[in-house]
Amino acid sequence: MLSLSIIGTGNVAFHLAKAFSAAQDVNLQFVAGRNAAELEVFNSFCTTTNLNEELEKTFSSDVILIAVSDAAIAAVSQQLIESEALILHTSGSTSMAILDQNKRYGVLYPLQSFSKEKELIYKKIPFLIESKLQQDLEMIKTLTESLSANYFTVNSKDRAALHLAAVFSNNFTNHILTEAKQLCDDSKVPFELLKPLVLETIDKAFRIGPENSQTGPAKRNDTITINKQLSALKSAEQKELYTLLTQAIQKYYER
Amino acid sequence: MLSLSIIGTGNVAFHLAKAFSAAQDVNLQFVAGRNAAELEVFNSFCTTTNLNEELEKTFSSDVILIAVSDAAIAAVSQQLIESEALILHTSGSTSMAILDQNKRYGVLYPLQSFSKEKELIYKKIPFLIESKLQQDLEMIKTLTESLSANYFTVNSKDRAALHLAAVFSNNFTNHILTEAKQLCDDSKVPFELLKPLVLETIDKAFRIGPENSQTGPAKRNDTITINKQLSALKSAEQKELYTLLTQAIQKYYER
Repeated sequence: MLSLSIIGTGNVAFHLAKAFSAAQDVNLQFVAGRNAAELEVFNSFCTTTNLNEELEKTFSSDVILIAVSDAAIAAVSQQLIESEALILHTSGSTSMAILDQNKRYGVLYPLQSFSKEKELIYKKIPFLIESKLQQDLEMIKTLTESLSANYFTVNSKDRAALHLAAVFSNNFTNHILTEAKQLCDDSKVPFELLKPLVLETIDKAFRIGPENSQTGPAKRNDTITINKQLSALKSAEQKELYTLLTQAIQKYYER
Repeated sequence: MLSLSIIGTGNVAFHLAKAFSAAQDVNLQFVAGRNAAELEVFNSFCTTTNLNEELEKTFSSDVILIAVSDAAIAAVSQQLIESEALILHTSGSTSMAILDQNKRYGVLYPLQSFSKEKELIYKKIPFLIESKLQQDLEMIKTLTESLSANYFTVNSKDRAALHLAAVFSNNFTNHILTEAKQLCDDSKVPFELLKPLVLETIDKAFRIGPENSQTGPAKRNDTITINKQLSALKSAEQKELYTLLTQAIQKYYER
């Protein structure tokens, strides 16, 4: 059985620790964090240890997963230089090469948004994986398979591209919805009414391609509606977003 | 049984005609269009008639639905001034008052994106309805109920607000996905990998509110990742969208 330790106490660490602690083919040995308070939520389902005082406890694991903020990966990986374990980070936008001081290393990046409050369905999450040594890839595949998840072998450059596309399709889409909800709230109409429309938009975008399913005033150059809507917007931020996205759509379909 | 005629041959006219032709409590009498070619697709399931030559055939229907482009509603409604029927338009952003030359009038706006290639599930579509005379509202409700759809009585001002919110959450979201797909295509990584992330984003946004579920480099002011991603973007349009949306998110959470 594959033994695993996880370093980190954020959302990614929490969800992966919980999932691996329940996986049949993986033995989750330790979750390491900076202090007892952060580790408390993990104690009910795994053994925890202090990152600064007892990190070497994790060294004997087959795999050590660094699930910390991007900015902290380098420092944590330095603390693992003496370990013979396969060291993996979980970051979308960080190159695998950041771990090149370690003996064996790779990447296990779950392309999903994690929040503590919600259970995840792992078989629907694509894991982007990469390893320095070909033979270590099998161990990473074993990890994803133990969660019934799909893996895709992707190099650091392509992973960064997918992470950037994920920022557009998750963070930016979410902010657009935030502004849409604000417009609903301002007029006291329920934001929930938009849910079927949004789900249809997403479904269509992935079925026939978003470039083939665009509709609306910008696409059809409906200047009357565009001007009416622009003048109905109250905040400068909303006007700016409306203008730029309308122009972007118009330019795209002029090409 | 309620008798209905529909004027128009676009996606909304097509889907509503098809649905009402199959509805038990509605008798779809005519679909009127400008020429035989446009009407051809309707002939398999309803009776069609020429808009310019035989529009008066529709006058005896209980309800006449104007499902044409926003810019053409006024002209079409003028041709219906002699009719005793309840005249409805199907536009999100057009005030009911555009029909005030007609004897009885109102609005039946389906808050959904229509495309010819896909069947719609009407019970999931919210219909925003409005009528000049209170007693005519019942007739509009009968129409939506015949499709097993939900109706919401909303005045023209609030409907325009919802339509504007719909432009954000459908058209703008779709364009963001178009740019995300472009980024994937440029790196030859499959856009489909993003689907679980996008569905999770939408689910979370409607469950806890998009303003409570924002994540990513902009939200956490991760300047290193922001600069790395900005310099990875090739097109000026993408850089501009990235910058504006990143700033918008940062401003929003500074408030």
